[in-house]
Amino acid sequence: MNNKEYALIVAGGKGTRIKSKVPKQFLDLDGVPILMRTINTFYAYSPTITVIVVLPEDDFPIWEELCLLHKYNKPLILTKGGDTRFQSVKNGLDKIEGDDGLVAIHDGVRPLVGEDIIGASFRLAAVHGSAVAAVRLKESIRMTDQDNTKAMDRSRFRLVQTPQTFTVSLIKQAYQIKEDASLTDDASVAERSGHVISLFEGSYENIKITTPEDLIVAEALLKDRRR
Amino acid sequence: MNNKEYALIVAGGKGTRIKSKVPKQFLDLDGVPILMRTINTFYAYSPTITVIVVLPEDDFPIWEELCLLHKYNKPLILTKGGDTRFQSVKNGLDKIEGDDGLVAIHDGVRPLVGEDIIGASFRLAAVHGSAVAAVRLKESIRMTDQDNTKAMDRSRFRLVQTPQTFTVSLIKQAYQIKEDASLTDDASVAERSGHVISLFEGSYENIKITTPEDLIVAEALLKDRRR
Repeated sequence: MNNKEYALIVAGGKGTRIKSKVPKQFLDLDGVPILMRTINTFYAYSPTITVIVVLPEDDFPIWEELCLLHKYNKPLILTKGGDTRFQSVKNGLDKIEGDDGLVAIHDGVRPLVGEDIIGASFRLAAVHGSAVAAVRLKESIRMTDQDNTKAMDRSRFRLVQTPQTFTVSLIKQAYQIKEDASLTDDASVAERSGHVISLFEGSYENIKITTPEDLIVAEALLKDRRR
Repeated sequence: MNNKEYALIVAGGKGTRIKSKVPKQFLDLDGVPILMRTINTFYAYSPTITVIVVLPEDDFPIWEELCLLHKYNKPLILTKGGDTRFQSVKNGLDKIEGDDGLVAIHDGVRPLVGEDIIGASFRLAAVHGSAVAAVRLKESIRMTDQDNTKAMDRSRFRLVQTPQTFTVSLIKQAYQIKEDASLTDDASVAERSGHVISLFEGSYENIKITTPEDLIVAEALLKDRRR
């Protein structure tokens, strides 16, 4: 296996949860669209990484306009999203020729991922086949059980983030399974296909921007980093 | 049952997770110590509420100094914390005379709880005996299972916040049980004592301030509210 590295950035969301007509991945975060920031972090980690961006076809014109506006000319492979995240990731994986290398699958709306997290995910996936960023729970957790809920031991749970990094061969094979609604992330797809999932320590700052509050939080965290 | 309302605010943390010698509940949040903001929100909800604050005895002098500095003279019952959260809550409950009314048990470091959330918790606890603020998961979740982890259905889980509001009689009786480390919140204590727990919709903004990043996030959310 060579060490060719890919970033597959999925930016399929329609922004329905943020009160904005602009899909959330295009919203401005301190002067730069969220998706552009996300891509930039992968290039900051490695200038030779191959970046594949999956976008709904309807959003291609906005993206092209934003690239013009920001004089953005980083090389990337743009491909169209499917009806679901599963389909979008599959379309993105189709853009990788052959089965060599590693691919970090990442949410387009997680611009605060650090270069250290990206680096760790590639290093660990090279060893274990998979490396999925996850964090411990800060709060108590309850599980619903019929019409009741019960307290669970929170130390046994992890909240899953992205990047979720895999060997290309593993994840391409995994995405051959039949899609269903319970497959909410790439780790669950790989697991369903019979692979053991390796987790590694993510970061609480690596938030997914899905609500107006998240955007405010992201701005504050970004401002603090620059201090 | 009368409708007397109590707020039992637990501020026992030593601030070890925030790089600060000042316990985290005393840190400044936009000009006002966090604990003071938390208390103020309960008074904003109801000027006639009885507020009980549980603090480590060592922290009484800092609190008194802060009250002088901020000319803070809201009436409150101050009582000393125990070695654990369980003991602290128990000490606070001991300050309530009789078994009538409702008590909202709340983390001192959740200053962004809204008056609406507090109001809902009292209304629902009056009907159901308990009302525990909880939110759905925004991210996928995995459960550890020996040395492996497995994907879980995130729709079945809730992250638990405070306030956790109960009839005084129910929660006083519940806190008679023997303490153990798995009882991480009041809902788990009440449940262990045989009560069914009612959840209600909390708020993602109602964060618990335990890290330096949380403080930055709280400041940003607060600033946004004032706009």
